[in-house]
Amino acid sequence: MSRKNKLRIIPLGGLGEVGKNMMAYEYGNDIIVVDAGIMFPKNDMLGVDYIIPDYEYLKKRANRVLGLFITHGHEDHIGAVQHFTEDIHVPVYATPLTRGLIEAKLHRNGAQHKVQMKTIQAGETTRLGPFTLEYFHVNHSIPDGVGIGITTPAGLVVHMSDFKFDQTPVDGWPTDFAKLSEFSNRGVDLLLSDSTNAERPGWTPSEAVIGPAFDKVFGEAKGRIIVATFASLISRVQQVADAAAKTGRKMALAGPSMVDNVKIARKMKYLEIPDDLIVSIEQALQMQNHKVVIMCTGSQGEPSSIVGRLSAGTNRQFDLKDGDTIVLSSHPIPGNEESISKTINRLLRRGAKVIHDGIAPIHVSGHAAQEEQKLLINLVRPKHFMPIHGELRQLSRHAELAQQLGVEQENIIIAENGQVVELVGKKLMRGERIPGDYVFVTGESIGDIGHDVMKERSQLARNGILLIDISIDKKTGRLLHEPEVITRGFVSPEEATSLIPDVRKLILRMVHNDGFDDEKDIINAVKSYLHQQTKRRPMVFVTLSKS
Amino acid sequence: MSRKNKLRIIPLGGLGEVGKNMMAYEYGNDIIVVDAGIMFPKNDMLGVDYIIPDYEYLKKRANRVLGLFITHGHEDHIGAVQHFTEDIHVPVYATPLTRGLIEAKLHRNGAQHKVQMKTIQAGETTRLGPFTLEYFHVNHSIPDGVGIGITTPAGLVVHMSDFKFDQTPVDGWPTDFAKLSEFSNRGVDLLLSDSTNAERPGWTPSEAVIGPAFDKVFGEAKGRIIVATFASLISRVQQVADAAAKTGRKMALAGPSMVDNVKIARKMKYLEIPDDLIVSIEQALQMQNHKVVIMCTGSQGEPSSIVGRLSAGTNRQFDLKDGDTIVLSSHPIPGNEESISKTINRLLRRGAKVIHDGIAPIHVSGHAAQEEQKLLINLVRPKHFMPIHGELRQLSRHAELAQQLGVEQENIIIAENGQVVELVGKKLMRGERIPGDYVFVTGESIGDIGHDVMKERSQLARNGILLIDISIDKKTGRLLHEPEVITRGFVSPEEATSLIPDVRKLILRMVHNDGFDDEKDIINAVKSYLHQQTKRRPMVFVTLSKS
Repeated sequence: MSRKNKLRIIPLGGLGEVGKNMMAYEYGNDIIVVDAGIMFPKNDMLGVDYIIPDYEYLKKRANRVLGLFITHGHEDHIGAVQHFTEDIHVPVYATPLTRGLIEAKLHRNGAQHKVQMKTIQAGETTRLGPFTLEYFHVNHSIPDGVGIGITTPAGLVVHMSDFKFDQTPVDGWPTDFAKLSEFSNRGVDLLLSDSTNAERPGWTPSEAVIGPAFDKVFGEAKGRIIVATFASLISRVQQVADAAAKTGRKMALAGPSMVDNVKIARKMKYLEIPDDLIVSIEQALQMQNHKVVIMCTGSQGEPSSIVGRLSAGTNRQFDLKDGDTIVLSSHPIPGNEESISKTINRLLRRGAKVIHDGIAPIHVSGHAAQEEQKLLINLVRPKHFMPIHGELRQLSRHAELAQQLGVEQENIIIAENGQVVELVGKKLMRGERIPGDYVFVTGESIGDIGHDVMKERSQLARNGILLIDISIDKKTGRLLHEPEVITRGFVSPEEATSLIPDVRKLILRMVHNDGFDDEKDIINAVKSYLHQQTKRRPMVFVTLSKS
Repeated sequence: MSRKNKLRIIPLGGLGEVGKNMMAYEYGNDIIVVDAGIMFPKNDMLGVDYIIPDYEYLKKRANRVLGLFITHGHEDHIGAVQHFTEDIHVPVYATPLTRGLIEAKLHRNGAQHKVQMKTIQAGETTRLGPFTLEYFHVNHSIPDGVGIGITTPAGLVVHMSDFKFDQTPVDGWPTDFAKLSEFSNRGVDLLLSDSTNAERPGWTPSEAVIGPAFDKVFGEAKGRIIVATFASLISRVQQVADAAAKTGRKMALAGPSMVDNVKIARKMKYLEIPDDLIVSIEQALQMQNHKVVIMCTGSQGEPSSIVGRLSAGTNRQFDLKDGDTIVLSSHPIPGNEESISKTINRLLRRGAKVIHDGIAPIHVSGHAAQEEQKLLINLVRPKHFMPIHGELRQLSRHAELAQQLGVEQENIIIAENGQVVELVGKKLMRGERIPGDYVFVTGESIGDIGHDVMKERSQLARNGILLIDISIDKKTGRLLHEPEVITRGFVSPEEATSLIPDVRKLILRMVHNDGFDDEKDIINAVKSYLHQQTKRRPMVFVTLSKS
């Protein structure tokens, strides 16, 4: 088959979640990339700040990449734009709000002039090499999201990024059903669709259900209200502003990303908040408690966020007060359950009232549930189907749904990151595997920390370390002084008091009586002694000097 | 107030979950203890095997403790019996199945003769010093659970451990409503009740709903079925056995705790499984795939469990086969979500079909939801209420429910572990605070590892270590050889190649040119250099010898 008629679909980013943060499409010599987001580390990824997709494959073909297309303004879709464009110099296409959020982020890093941005709009079309990209509006938990119809000589692919079918969205702009039907009439060769909620039956509730829940919370609260959510959850800000206006409260925003994002969204009219509703945080702190709502970040229990600091009593600008109501307006991201619970418990211990999505409908998902996923498939009637944006468990569930709707099993491919899928001669098939892992970012280092270092960290963390410094007289072969022993993360000071003298004695005996060949002998003897005494295995290091 | 009329209620065990694993009641000079269980470490408790309650208060008063009463046979209620009875030599009271499970556990540790066990039965009464204990049957996810009515001259306390109101339990023995009503008629001064599901509205489904779900799974599976659950979930074993019998499969049990527990439960008639339904695991592996169901542990994604090893391809006795269906018959314990997802994804990647409680009703909770919690309060009509078995977030929700039902706010106390609560003169009030933290167990060490060591481990884990060994000529003040530098968990080998020579040069310069006072100077210089280069802060250690 000639290269000419082959579209290569390459999922590249996501922590087990396929194509979540980056997807590439390659036709002939040309490549386009959809999204460049970051991932947040799992609990066992020790000391990692964040994670970016491994796009080595694209770097090697940088001169063939035509553009980066961003579907919406969430961190897991825009967070790696700066890294990506430093390596691959291409224009970045985004809708107005998404562009604004990217630019604010670049600005915070002093990189606003380094990236060439192009504004696109839902309903528009971009032609680039062999690709025709048609953007269409989708609902998600941030405004101005798009899906993309991608036409090449190999056929029409519908790329559905994060979406839901909200019939009453806060911004009054539902997903573009007409465009999806139009694609369907043209004949869709392949649909890629968001699998996040493939294990959730039914239909995700509309953002509109949050309004009455907020009204209730605002109606009942006697003191200040502090609402925590993601800085990018623009529609939630609108809902809080509406509830504040109704109940005679002023709204203050805390935290740079929250302040920036609201500023941009207001300027671009994605948020309709009258000027006199907004006060500075300093003003808010001077006002009567029942006249104030503060919006900030920290709904995932991040210790360094404002809510995290409030829960620990370490927030500098203001502290919790009697009668405060804290609203955590988000759902735990898997893996964050423990830290969120810890935060809730601490807030309660400090006397706050805490409202979270387990006890009131103050958050809804931004992703389609099963009935919406099915509706999409029936609207689009694709010949082939590829579930994306999920771990294997969600992808296989989503594939089952597609089969129930009549998509042939052999026309469905579940791929993992790095698994190239090819649409060729109107057939979908597996291609080669390329590196599709991810890259750890810690401090200034990008990709230097790999799984080996992570393994060492986990070893260090499990049992700690023991360091021994030995000095021996070259002539007599006797110790020049007592061996120095230091431990970290191994034993308590009390336990050390009995254990360390015994380690010293053991070394003394080895040096003066039993003899040894090199450091390794001592390490092994100490290790087995420690294991016998404590049933634990710290890392043991010996430095030996003879003089 | 005289000590004579005062009952002290002391919640002692639980990882933030109040009184979950141990409660003590002290009246005058006498103490009884309810439950002695273990907790499992949170994700940030590095290298901890398990955790036991801090019962130092009881140890110091060991001669005043009259007995340990166990409500049911789950690990978080029996797991610390051995530790406890080694420190405090008292008889352990338990119902037949619970006793059997404790004895099996002691037997596995060779400690069966060290503990004095006494059998109690629901419906019986024990009088011990000033305490009259009336046991009554409760439903939970293990048979033979009891609640305890505790009468002292201070009044009647109803201690409700883990429970649900299952109208159609697998063993046909519902919670003893009549006894609860009898208590109510006598007048209950204080109710302590299970708050685990205080955030769940409605009524926890009956164990009976699992039957049809299993029938469906067993009816559809073409190959082997492997059901993973907790070894103590005896009723689940009955349900799997029933489904196996219906569909002509034989059942094999894998794993020592599963084998032991089933043996005990069958012997005591808590399980009704005909002999010919059970085969050994060796036999099962020889049989046709569709004739077999294997029950094992590992439903929480534990890497060392059978399912964990199957998912990694490292199980010795048998491996996954095409057509295998794995049923994870449990709900994620908070904090285990990540490892369970990892296991599910791995099983799917290896070609197995995976059924979990997110996609089929193959598990129900063993704890009362809100409507059951309310029913209990209305049945018992307590004067005072103390929510237990939950974190602060669940306890405060449970307290709100009690208030909705008319319990006066001033008659409700939310206590944390170590907060003594006193029932005195028919009033409930807060007493002193005693140590109510927990004790880490790792290897052979009990309580030696504290929060300080844990903090060091987390520091080691975040950024790794760098060790430097320097030898200096005493006379010339010059280096005897190049400084040796070792790192672990800090940088990749590639990054080390450029970084470590620079660290050597820095030390060279300090020793030969700039001068330094002691190790600390070198440590500080290296630290700031590393931070400048990598934006990371490993622990740095220097050993310096002069000769």
